[in-house]
Amino acid sequence: MTATETAAETAAAGTGRTRTPRPTALSAVWLRDNCGCAECRDPGTGQKLFQITDLPDSLAIASAEQRTEAGRDGSGSGDGSDSSEGWDVVWSPDGHRSHYDAAWLAAAAQPDPRAEDGKELWPFAEDLDGRLPETSWDAYRSDDRERLRMLDAVRSLGFCLLRGVPLEDGQVQQVALSFGFVRETNYGLQFEVRVEEQPNNLAFTNVAITPHTDNPYRDPVPTLQLLHCLVNDALGGDSGLVDGFAVAARLREQDPEAFAVLTTTPVEFAFRDAVTELSAHRPLIDVDAEGRIREVRFNNRSLGTLRLPAARTDAFYRAYRAFAELLLAPEAQLEFRLGPGDCLIFDNTRLLHARTAFERGGARHLQGCYADLDALLSTVAVLRRTHEEQN
Amino acid sequence: MTATETAAETAAAGTGRTRTPRPTALSAVWLRDNCGCAECRDPGTGQKLFQITDLPDSLAIASAEQRTEAGRDGSGSGDGSDSSEGWDVVWSPDGHRSHYDAAWLAAAAQPDPRAEDGKELWPFAEDLDGRLPETSWDAYRSDDRERLRMLDAVRSLGFCLLRGVPLEDGQVQQVALSFGFVRETNYGLQFEVRVEEQPNNLAFTNVAITPHTDNPYRDPVPTLQLLHCLVNDALGGDSGLVDGFAVAARLREQDPEAFAVLTTTPVEFAFRDAVTELSAHRPLIDVDAEGRIREVRFNNRSLGTLRLPAARTDAFYRAYRAFAELLLAPEAQLEFRLGPGDCLIFDNTRLLHARTAFERGGARHLQGCYADLDALLSTVAVLRRTHEEQN
Repeated sequence: MTATETAAETAAAGTGRTRTPRPTALSAVWLRDNCGCAECRDPGTGQKLFQITDLPDSLAIASAEQRTEAGRDGSGSGDGSDSSEGWDVVWSPDGHRSHYDAAWLAAAAQPDPRAEDGKELWPFAEDLDGRLPETSWDAYRSDDRERLRMLDAVRSLGFCLLRGVPLEDGQVQQVALSFGFVRETNYGLQFEVRVEEQPNNLAFTNVAITPHTDNPYRDPVPTLQLLHCLVNDALGGDSGLVDGFAVAARLREQDPEAFAVLTTTPVEFAFRDAVTELSAHRPLIDVDAEGRIREVRFNNRSLGTLRLPAARTDAFYRAYRAFAELLLAPEAQLEFRLGPGDCLIFDNTRLLHARTAFERGGARHLQGCYADLDALLSTVAVLRRTHEEQN
Repeated sequence: MTATETAAETAAAGTGRTRTPRPTALSAVWLRDNCGCAECRDPGTGQKLFQITDLPDSLAIASAEQRTEAGRDGSGSGDGSDSSEGWDVVWSPDGHRSHYDAAWLAAAAQPDPRAEDGKELWPFAEDLDGRLPETSWDAYRSDDRERLRMLDAVRSLGFCLLRGVPLEDGQVQQVALSFGFVRETNYGLQFEVRVEEQPNNLAFTNVAITPHTDNPYRDPVPTLQLLHCLVNDALGGDSGLVDGFAVAARLREQDPEAFAVLTTTPVEFAFRDAVTELSAHRPLIDVDAEGRIREVRFNNRSLGTLRLPAARTDAFYRAYRAFAELLLAPEAQLEFRLGPGDCLIFDNTRLLHARTAFERGGARHLQGCYADLDALLSTVAVLRRTHEEQN
């Protein structure tokens, strides 16, 4: 039985007659918990009005009657659909009445858009085959479908690239506000990626930065990063992206033992300066309860000191090195150059980013900010309400 | 061998002579990865300068010499300490030289401050024994030690209460900025908890709200919530807090099967209005790789529709009900009343909060905002640098 097999499908397979299961074949408490009547669910907010402990212990279906004709008020349906085909249920012992739409009963589980099943992985740069998800700032702003295409690319591929974003101070925050909210950190609402006199982070120097995720010492980690290029006249300073989910999936295939170690060893990441002292204890590869990859952290600069028994320490380092070799392989890295007006939006829980060194004194200035995926995915869902059929 | 037993302790136990282990008894790659010399770690930022893949495959200690006298430059120590007692190591095959301070070598693992081991749990309200962590806004602002005491209470007990916070619009955000950053959401930088004409959430009505965590449909969930009371003249409208970690630990003890189900079943939480459509797939009890409780989500209003095979569905509902019965038991709930000027800061990954119903038309107005624990814990760590001994 797979994780995506639903109660409805199980029941349907059992009866072999219909894709809409009989209520009596389903979990009674589940069915009752999903009653959509106005007593159970606030019609204004859609929020549930009772606690699970309010339901009778001895809950059972007293009667279930199938309706096939249309025309009945559909307000009792589990998902708010207007269809009234489905089942009318009377409950014992309290006599409560529920209506369940056929479409709602037959619905399948949706993949979690944050875990690997909800993504299009690209283990190697060549898998993208030149299909960079990109558009102009003007098109993004004026055309909802283009905005949907870009933001959905962040969900599926992990990034998108907006061109021609105005070369104005603070514009990167306007890009974040176009789909969500800026996450302020000790680096500010916005940070300047350029050579600083007294950097508190190597990002603010001219040295090469190998592929990494940002701020693994923060929990919650910023789930999105935006980088807006204002100037890039320096020799060097090219950009790179690596699909950490795809590489973690390759590690699971090639070296399951290493994958298991990295999903089960909490690692401390740390950052410290005069006014800040952040740390987080998280695994390099975080999987959900079903074993699906849902977050990757990788940052050699801020990996803290492991304090584990020697055998676990050795096992971790062997696995860490195996993962690093795959992540840092040139063929895993998509390379491109950000020019003035380019704004990159990427999933910091999945993609690693990198930059080559650039000449000391070379002119290179990006502005960056952090934001979060939940709001971006909300914007995608709302845009889909009106534009899904047109894509 | 327990999770907190360190490589150093293991080695120390092995030799039986000293608490400072011989480098040759430790994981060589771990030791080298923690070299603190200026070649390996940027002296300005403290960030590591090499990748794990840069280290030789055949890494080994060529020689290790113990130093017991003081007076040597301690810049090579793993933790930046000034002590120079410890070991000088020369590495094979590359001849690299490292110095490791004795204190750093002997250091033990620190508990993750976000997981249950780093907390003081209070399974029942009476366990707090009237020790409400509270102070005045004036003392919090003027005395670093008082600020440290309050913020550290949020880490250990999950909350603190500031009294006499000025009754000004937006003041709740100023409280958040005193230790970190506001997390903006679809509810704004700040939200008004009072009766709204067209509420998109039952919080903005006068009905009773049973214990819950906020925004479980958001990922990352806001890890802190602040509530600042401006007016509370209504009959009713009292507040409650429940320690979700302590109750989850009780569930693990009383009903390990239910605990296991709740830690391994991803549940969809959902919120939808005209401009927002959020969802997150997370377990009700999230444990780290060592099985320690690190996050609790509980919200009957926004629990979505489970789509699992019938047997797993039934198991989930049995466990959910068992957890709910413990969480909603009156003895688990700390009850108090917020008065004008009171500002509550609490850990939204751990504590559930509640309020009783209040009279329709009764005057009750709180302002709230979200923030994050990582910045709060950073502020605690920085305050400790100067004030730890004085507490």
